[in-house]
Amino acid sequence: MKSFQTLLLVLTVFYSCNEKKESTDSVDDNQHPKLILTKKGVDKIRASLGSVPIFDKTLEKVKKEVDAEIADGIKMPIPKDYSGGYSHDQHKRNMVVLQKAGVLYQILDDEKYAKYVKDMLMQYEAMYKTLPVHPKTRSYARGKLFWQCLNDSNWLVYVSQAYDCVYNYLSEEERNKLETNLFKPFADFISIGNPQFYQRVHNHSTWGNAAVGMIGLVMDDQELIDRALYGIKDLKLNTTEKDDDGGFLNKDGKAGFLANIEEPFSPDGYYNEGPYYQRYAMYPFLIFAEGLHNVKPELKIFEYKEGVLLKSINALLNLSDADGDFFPLNDGQKGMSYYTSALVTAVDISYHFGTQDSGLLSIASAQDRVLLDDSGLSVALGIKNGKATSFNKKSINLSDGPKGEQGGVAILRNEDIELVFKYAAQGSSHGHYDKLSYSLYEKGEEILQDYGLARFVNIEQKGGGNYLKENKTWAKQTIAHNTVTQNETSHFNAKYEIGSQHHSVLNYFSSENENVQVASAKEANAYPGTEMLRTMAIIKDEDLEKPYMLDIMKVTSNEANQYDFPYYFLGQVLNTNFKYDTPKTLNTLGTKNGYQHLYVEGTAKASSENSKLSWLNKGKFYTLTTLTNNNDELLFTRIGANDPEFNLRREAAFMLRRKNAKNTLFVSTIEAHGGYSPVTESAVNSNSSIKELQLVLDTEDYTAIQITSEKGNIKLFITANTNASKEAKHTIKINDKNYEWSGSYYFE
Amino acid sequence: MKSFQTLLLVLTVFYSCNEKKESTDSVDDNQHPKLILTKKGVDKIRASLGSVPIFDKTLEKVKKEVDAEIADGIKMPIPKDYSGGYSHDQHKRNMVVLQKAGVLYQILDDEKYAKYVKDMLMQYEAMYKTLPVHPKTRSYARGKLFWQCLNDSNWLVYVSQAYDCVYNYLSEEERNKLETNLFKPFADFISIGNPQFYQRVHNHSTWGNAAVGMIGLVMDDQELIDRALYGIKDLKLNTTEKDDDGGFLNKDGKAGFLANIEEPFSPDGYYNEGPYYQRYAMYPFLIFAEGLHNVKPELKIFEYKEGVLLKSINALLNLSDADGDFFPLNDGQKGMSYYTSALVTAVDISYHFGTQDSGLLSIASAQDRVLLDDSGLSVALGIKNGKATSFNKKSINLSDGPKGEQGGVAILRNEDIELVFKYAAQGSSHGHYDKLSYSLYEKGEEILQDYGLARFVNIEQKGGGNYLKENKTWAKQTIAHNTVTQNETSHFNAKYEIGSQHHSVLNYFSSENENVQVASAKEANAYPGTEMLRTMAIIKDEDLEKPYMLDIMKVTSNEANQYDFPYYFLGQVLNTNFKYDTPKTLNTLGTKNGYQHLYVEGTAKASSENSKLSWLNKGKFYTLTTLTNNNDELLFTRIGANDPEFNLRREAAFMLRRKNAKNTLFVSTIEAHGGYSPVTESAVNSNSSIKELQLVLDTEDYTAIQITSEKGNIKLFITANTNASKEAKHTIKINDKNYEWSGSYYFE
Repeated sequence: MKSFQTLLLVLTVFYSCNEKKESTDSVDDNQHPKLILTKKGVDKIRASLGSVPIFDKTLEKVKKEVDAEIADGIKMPIPKDYSGGYSHDQHKRNMVVLQKAGVLYQILDDEKYAKYVKDMLMQYEAMYKTLPVHPKTRSYARGKLFWQCLNDSNWLVYVSQAYDCVYNYLSEEERNKLETNLFKPFADFISIGNPQFYQRVHNHSTWGNAAVGMIGLVMDDQELIDRALYGIKDLKLNTTEKDDDGGFLNKDGKAGFLANIEEPFSPDGYYNEGPYYQRYAMYPFLIFAEGLHNVKPELKIFEYKEGVLLKSINALLNLSDADGDFFPLNDGQKGMSYYTSALVTAVDISYHFGTQDSGLLSIASAQDRVLLDDSGLSVALGIKNGKATSFNKKSINLSDGPKGEQGGVAILRNEDIELVFKYAAQGSSHGHYDKLSYSLYEKGEEILQDYGLARFVNIEQKGGGNYLKENKTWAKQTIAHNTVTQNETSHFNAKYEIGSQHHSVLNYFSSENENVQVASAKEANAYPGTEMLRTMAIIKDEDLEKPYMLDIMKVTSNEANQYDFPYYFLGQVLNTNFKYDTPKTLNTLGTKNGYQHLYVEGTAKASSENSKLSWLNKGKFYTLTTLTNNNDELLFTRIGANDPEFNLRREAAFMLRRKNAKNTLFVSTIEAHGGYSPVTESAVNSNSSIKELQLVLDTEDYTAIQITSEKGNIKLFITANTNASKEAKHTIKINDKNYEWSGSYYFE
Repeated sequence: MKSFQTLLLVLTVFYSCNEKKESTDSVDDNQHPKLILTKKGVDKIRASLGSVPIFDKTLEKVKKEVDAEIADGIKMPIPKDYSGGYSHDQHKRNMVVLQKAGVLYQILDDEKYAKYVKDMLMQYEAMYKTLPVHPKTRSYARGKLFWQCLNDSNWLVYVSQAYDCVYNYLSEEERNKLETNLFKPFADFISIGNPQFYQRVHNHSTWGNAAVGMIGLVMDDQELIDRALYGIKDLKLNTTEKDDDGGFLNKDGKAGFLANIEEPFSPDGYYNEGPYYQRYAMYPFLIFAEGLHNVKPELKIFEYKEGVLLKSINALLNLSDADGDFFPLNDGQKGMSYYTSALVTAVDISYHFGTQDSGLLSIASAQDRVLLDDSGLSVALGIKNGKATSFNKKSINLSDGPKGEQGGVAILRNEDIELVFKYAAQGSSHGHYDKLSYSLYEKGEEILQDYGLARFVNIEQKGGGNYLKENKTWAKQTIAHNTVTQNETSHFNAKYEIGSQHHSVLNYFSSENENVQVASAKEANAYPGTEMLRTMAIIKDEDLEKPYMLDIMKVTSNEANQYDFPYYFLGQVLNTNFKYDTPKTLNTLGTKNGYQHLYVEGTAKASSENSKLSWLNKGKFYTLTTLTNNNDELLFTRIGANDPEFNLRREAAFMLRRKNAKNTLFVSTIEAHGGYSPVTESAVNSNSSIKELQLVLDTEDYTAIQITSEKGNIKLFITANTNASKEAKHTIKINDKNYEWSGSYYFE
């Protein structure tokens, strides 16, 4: 961190020089509000009050909430806690209430809200001007109100809106006082005072950029606006520094809001850190974009990079399961969903500034609240006028990388089954080392889980609400995921420097046939000398009750390795077609790379060509059928070893271990079938419908799997491993029969 | 089993002698249906069709279901499977469909239903007359259609109703054929053919009695009716034999339906095996009672034993949590609830034949279906006429034992907190060895769980759907419950012969003060020489967000022992106020009496007078505070050791171990507080509000606990250990202050 300190010294000078307000305040005062609310929009909202149910309901709720806060009085603790602690939570609360009170003042034209905002802002002004850096030292960029600049930025994004709403209510003298002692130094501190935080392509920086930009728009301070859009002028950071999470601070020198749109979003709108962080970043992206759209329409921000901001909302909604919960790719906390307020912003803005997609209205209906601005009014009116249709999620392939050339994420959907297949790039510092991993869902419930992060966000008792050390030692490691681990070592040796240079490559994606959805991708860098090609399909077959998953993982290596292939199932073992031993005492599976966190609960040698495991979870039956040979070891493991603070969930996995193999193939199906009700106590369709899986061909170019149902019908799936374009023509012979087709795969 | 075989030989003779139909068929044919449906009732139902929503809806659903079955054709597999297998499930399905088709014939007057019933009955007649005993040998009383007589009895209870409905549709010749070759031999086989099943006081026998009685009522066969009411005439069984579950077959020689009402129900309507089995037994009790009421009104069956059948329904509904799930006392499978069809029967019959309690209508509304008979019509009309009110469950004390003198079960309720305190008798062969144990709920979610049974009812893959061996080795053992285990040995040495001779004794129950609900009971026989007195309270205090639990377990022994005191919490450890070690490998806590199933995940020495553990479960925070001394060991354990088929759930416990203690006291509070939402990512009130627990007095007569809140307020709870009547007057001095009160406890 030495270079930061030097940098800070240098910048302190720069910072002092810039303390005076440089903008000319050319905007007419009457033009406020202008940022999120607009004069025109407020007039329209006022005229509609009482006639648009969901808007009125939201307004009523917000009014009740803010009235209670006003009655309770302003609380302004001296900053001292981490996330989850009192001072942290209070200032977080204050920023939200300020924003809401500002909006209420505009919509209801009741001075009590403006006065409340003014009073609180003045208290902040009084405190901030002498406030030292936050006493908690854990962050790479400490804030003043909060332990990290990130939270200070959150605050300014909200409070800028409040300030805009009461701008005309305040006297010029009051505004000067606030701008000089609070807003300007605040904006400077989180930017030029903390370039290691601000001057990056990272979701943290996006918040910083938006904060600086939004207060700049309100104050009409072009320098701040430019700093927001393009980064701190003429500043270059050391490109080899890393942040707390192990990510590079600023490897390529890019910075500013536009760079933060440019870099992390693929042309399809996939955000490189995954949906959990996209959700977090979404609010500053969109709220600042809305502000820019209103104040600087000439920037055409919603058209930037071919409209990627609005595309990203569609991508994000598609990255949620049937319940609206985001798939926990990378460092995702489970349970985060499109019910979060950032997604209310996203859905409303997408509807209003986009193409008025009626499917968004059904999500807004489920959210049961709207933004109290022009976009929220549009949505509320759409719902009121009966325009809502259901938002149909289909199979979708989302490219990763600024140009869409760094792998991606494919989601296969059929009926209630959803498969999320990750063949993306590293995902910045929040990425996990899980190339070609997947998770599987039925109607929003996990069948095979991705563990998500090891963190209890904002729960102070658990490591201050921050990342726990098990996030690195377990959640990020390859063995924690449904993919291949070679020689008990994580992909890229779990090294960010290496992982972030590579990405997997799409072999093909095919969703034209509604009964057969397929994604196939290759990873050649996770283990030098080893190539993995994984082809995953969700297949609807009349002999099976529900669509099933077919998974073909082809591993080619130039030397013999041990391959571990886990299935993170949830629930309780029902039965197996192999005998296994259970140990008297539980030992760990290994000593490092995540293995130290797994207990071995059972061991077996595979005894037949198809090993089967059935389990029961939340009243539903599932069966895994996997091709095995007599040397394969089968393991039951459980997460939770070397976990001295009970930070990990005690969940199970089944694992196939193949030793001393060079080129090999893992072929499995997972069926969801039947169900059990504890009320009727009846078990329906509790047995697998797949009688046999058979490998009938495996060459460099093709792999063919034969699936025989319990009813005796035989299906053949042939995947093209090399020449897999839609147009490619194939002719091959299997067991003396010729197969001819064109396209990526054959199924019949 | 030798004596059974002899008995069977003897009875086969008896059975053969009775094969001819003895009744005189004196009833006019026109009087059918008469059993559950009545001529008069059917007329009323037909007149109401189309005007009573919930009845019409149920009828529509049943019609759709039966029409689909008719379209599908009759299936009559040769019996061969255990529960969950095909032949088992099909015959179970057939019995239900027969009953429904019979009802449809009566209500809709459409012959296709009568014909369907006739056709299927004739197929049963054709098969049954040559059917051997079921090939599966596991039951102590094998059936013919099913692997156990119990299921055969289920079948006859349903099919009697179907037969009654089509009685007049059939020719006399057809009736003779069915009665001679199917019904009479069927009734004989499950009764005189299997006295070890039939001639008992047990829920199995209740089904047998009802089956024989109901077909007797339809056939107007007085001998069968008498056999149903009073048991097999002149038959005495060996009173020392036991069944599969370890229960005595017929210890005191009582048998028949009336004895089955007399014995297991307490005057309060508590059923000695607990709610899960009461629910199961409820259907034959009530449906046969309804039949008796209709055909033999002179018996006044609903007034029998001061109306205990209807009282028992109220007791059963009170033995459910906020979601309607029954508390899993003894061998209860979790998830069974008042949504089960037996409870539709119970609620409708209770309403119709009882006092038309409007609270029952809200449960019927939630059940969303009614019986298609007179009682269902009453309920449907009540709902239609807007009479439903909510069914308010309050704190309630239910005595156990035929005369209410064998302990009981107390349920303490305040706001969303429910505590179930078990101080009952053994609970027949389904009882667990858990004197003075409890479980704790918040809004239907478990805070401290009772494990329930170790069985996957009707899931064939798990031990044929039957009790698993872990039910005996784990679920029934004392250490599996939230009570004291002495010297690593279960209560009564887990011996049914001993346990069934004893019961705990109420000290007092008090629910007058709505802020303080208390139950206190004593157990003197579980460990000879040791007395346990447990006083449990749910207290609402203004310094705490929610009502909290106070638990005072006073142990008095004539020798030094080791006491283990577990808390089966669910969810994830948040923090503790003591340091603990976690082992590298997991070993079991012991080698027998359930201890062999527990892994030790953490160990500590208590370091302060109050040991605290907080945890998070399903988005809610909980804190245990318990009095400890420096010699106390604190253990974290996990269920699942020595479980070679993964039959047990991997759930946690925290355990207080006190060694080498004679008289001792365990005092704890459990608070539910705050919550966490993964959508807003905010943690609310995540810390305990109890600063300190202090023991300020402990004598033979009184125990006094002082509770200091974080706000600094001090409360004192004094419980009377000996003279605890409502009227008793008390004067004691604690720390030089005099306390005077009358009643069981003091709180201020």
